[in-house]
Amino acid sequence: MLTVKTPEEVASLLEESFTLTMSGELVPLSEALGRVLREPVIAAEYVPDFNRSTVDGYAVRSSDTFGCSEAIPALLVLTGEVLMGETPVMEIGSGQCASIPTGGELPKGADAVVMIEYTENYGDGTIGILKSAAPGSCLIFRGDDVRPGKEVLSRGRRLGVQDIGTLAALGHSKVSVCRKPVAGIISTGDELVSFSETPKGGQIRDVNSVMLSALLQDAGAECIFYGILKDDEALLDAAVGRALEECDLVLVSGGSSVGMKDSTCRVIEKHGSLLFHGIAMKPGKPTILGIAGGKAVFGLPGHPMAAFFVSELFVRPLVSRLMGRKAHIREIQAVLDETISANDGREHYLGVCLEERDGLCHAVPIHSKSGLITSLAASDGYFRIPRDCEGIAAGSKISVRLYAID
Amino acid sequence: MLTVKTPEEVASLLEESFTLTMSGELVPLSEALGRVLREPVIAAEYVPDFNRSTVDGYAVRSSDTFGCSEAIPALLVLTGEVLMGETPVMEIGSGQCASIPTGGELPKGADAVVMIEYTENYGDGTIGILKSAAPGSCLIFRGDDVRPGKEVLSRGRRLGVQDIGTLAALGHSKVSVCRKPVAGIISTGDELVSFSETPKGGQIRDVNSVMLSALLQDAGAECIFYGILKDDEALLDAAVGRALEECDLVLVSGGSSVGMKDSTCRVIEKHGSLLFHGIAMKPGKPTILGIAGGKAVFGLPGHPMAAFFVSELFVRPLVSRLMGRKAHIREIQAVLDETISANDGREHYLGVCLEERDGLCHAVPIHSKSGLITSLAASDGYFRIPRDCEGIAAGSKISVRLYAID
Repeated sequence: MLTVKTPEEVASLLEESFTLTMSGELVPLSEALGRVLREPVIAAEYVPDFNRSTVDGYAVRSSDTFGCSEAIPALLVLTGEVLMGETPVMEIGSGQCASIPTGGELPKGADAVVMIEYTENYGDGTIGILKSAAPGSCLIFRGDDVRPGKEVLSRGRRLGVQDIGTLAALGHSKVSVCRKPVAGIISTGDELVSFSETPKGGQIRDVNSVMLSALLQDAGAECIFYGILKDDEALLDAAVGRALEECDLVLVSGGSSVGMKDSTCRVIEKHGSLLFHGIAMKPGKPTILGIAGGKAVFGLPGHPMAAFFVSELFVRPLVSRLMGRKAHIREIQAVLDETISANDGREHYLGVCLEERDGLCHAVPIHSKSGLITSLAASDGYFRIPRDCEGIAAGSKISVRLYAID
Repeated sequence: MLTVKTPEEVASLLEESFTLTMSGELVPLSEALGRVLREPVIAAEYVPDFNRSTVDGYAVRSSDTFGCSEAIPALLVLTGEVLMGETPVMEIGSGQCASIPTGGELPKGADAVVMIEYTENYGDGTIGILKSAAPGSCLIFRGDDVRPGKEVLSRGRRLGVQDIGTLAALGHSKVSVCRKPVAGIISTGDELVSFSETPKGGQIRDVNSVMLSALLQDAGAECIFYGILKDDEALLDAAVGRALEECDLVLVSGGSSVGMKDSTCRVIEKHGSLLFHGIAMKPGKPTILGIAGGKAVFGLPGHPMAAFFVSELFVRPLVSRLMGRKAHIREIQAVLDETISANDGREHYLGVCLEERDGLCHAVPIHSKSGLITSLAASDGYFRIPRDCEGIAAGSKISVRLYAID
């Protein structure tokens, strides 16, 4: 028995029904930004790989400096110069020192570095140390940051810039990431023409295919577009069948004509089974979800704004799940600029523009009589009005979910 | 006279010195996600382009329904059916109606739609209307969302998914966006080897080139890598000269060896002029900025973590400025998990991991004795400790800046 689900129930159902299914592929590090790790990254090396000085100064045996002061410097014989990028050949014996740059490798025999500011070079081959140094002073030891065996990045991590830096430091010139899920996109509707065409009387442009492609691409997927279909169950059946063979998930965005919703349901049931038909949210109610061969088949509303919110809320996280990633939802706190009422027993989602005023972040709701996607142009995010809520008063603090690209 | 600048001064200097310099290019809408608009988008059409029904029902003359009720229905003659995607050919005269689907075009003569729930089909060619309809009921009028001449998206907007939808609805199959700034990347340092090589004694991997490429790519730029140079002023001079010819900005990330900072300064002064040398921040102090032929030349610290923070704070916004975009900084509020002290007169920047606990977002600072980039692996963002502040107590609310990719 299929009933209308709440958004929470839909989210749970997606979690139960779908999980990591992407295989891995090796990509060069230079192409790994934004990709999702298929395996944890385990360090195989020490970072740093040698004991390094953190200052410009002199490498010493700390015991040689104990008790010295500006009044009574410790006098050490300068035995050489540590060069950047080279393992020092000298060994520091008792009473000896070597100059060392920041980042230079500590020579054998030494156990501390004294900053150049606390030394005096007498120019005769001896250096005066004006301040005693404890063992380990001004040093980073081998493996202080990372030792072999440490999990540096976990499976499911979406790689950011700092992670790319980490992988470079660890010498990973290739990375095992999840293959990008491939999403099949199908638009249906007798009234649709391509967005590059000029609609004739009664026709409208197919907005969903290019918009959903952008959303899926942003979520980390690749897309195959199966074209705009006339409202014909046989055509839809063939397209869904082909998409199920070639893709990891399928999005059918439905024409509005009476009967086509039933067609989408029948086609899903032919290839697999229906999970629900209808979500208690606005916009987005006439949403269908099925499963066929373990793959999700969404029947999205034809209305672009509804298709947009349903995809942000459910398709985007599903793409993450297929890569074993738990997507973060980024919410910021804002002050609602005007009172919003809602009392029809559905969750409402409303776009907002954010404005900085009086040091506060204000959320200005976007009203649109038509509810067409154009009203969302230049919006920054959206907020949710719970179903048991009759509205939210102006001045209330709300959580705004930011779109992935601001 | 060049002195150390505060981070605020550096931000102002960048604003004064650099502005939109990118020319425009036309890209297909399917490749426009994340690109920055070079020109505002002005609507040339009405959205919607015709008067549309918002419900399934009957198109009527509202005056024919005045005074009707369930007890005394208005009886109208059914003259036809409005089809999706077609301009209706019938005209609704007095006493007539036509069936119309949601999204269907209102036929001539009609001025309202009555929901099917408030009608009765007697099956003999007449329809009973059970509830009176005001003029305009259940209709969206032509241009309700957008009228020709309206600025729908402003110049400098980075296009998000909803904007792609809007552009599709308006029939923009190509978009005029800013050409991507090209950044030249130069690594210098005798101790550096490519990240794909195994360092020998005293050598370290060149982390900056691939990390900065990722950051710039994420900020919307393209990169040209001019290789790893030995510490040699003539080599640096030649590389900077070539990069200034081929790129829109140049990043030299410096070796740590003594004297090479002066080399970078001299090379910048040969090609243009130096703007500052040193930022009062930690990490990131030994940063240089120059201008040559209107182009920024950064001398970044060789230390990857310092290069990372300087680039996040100054290079990323500069790339946005070159495209005429004001980048948003995304900050979220979090509870600092432990007390952090800082009192050396510089702003401190510290990476954090975010954790959800007890319904609150906690920021766990990342400590690293070595300050190597590997410590930032898996971090989510960073926060700032102002220079006049001796520290921040555990439990304080802090603003965490999120990295662009979570």
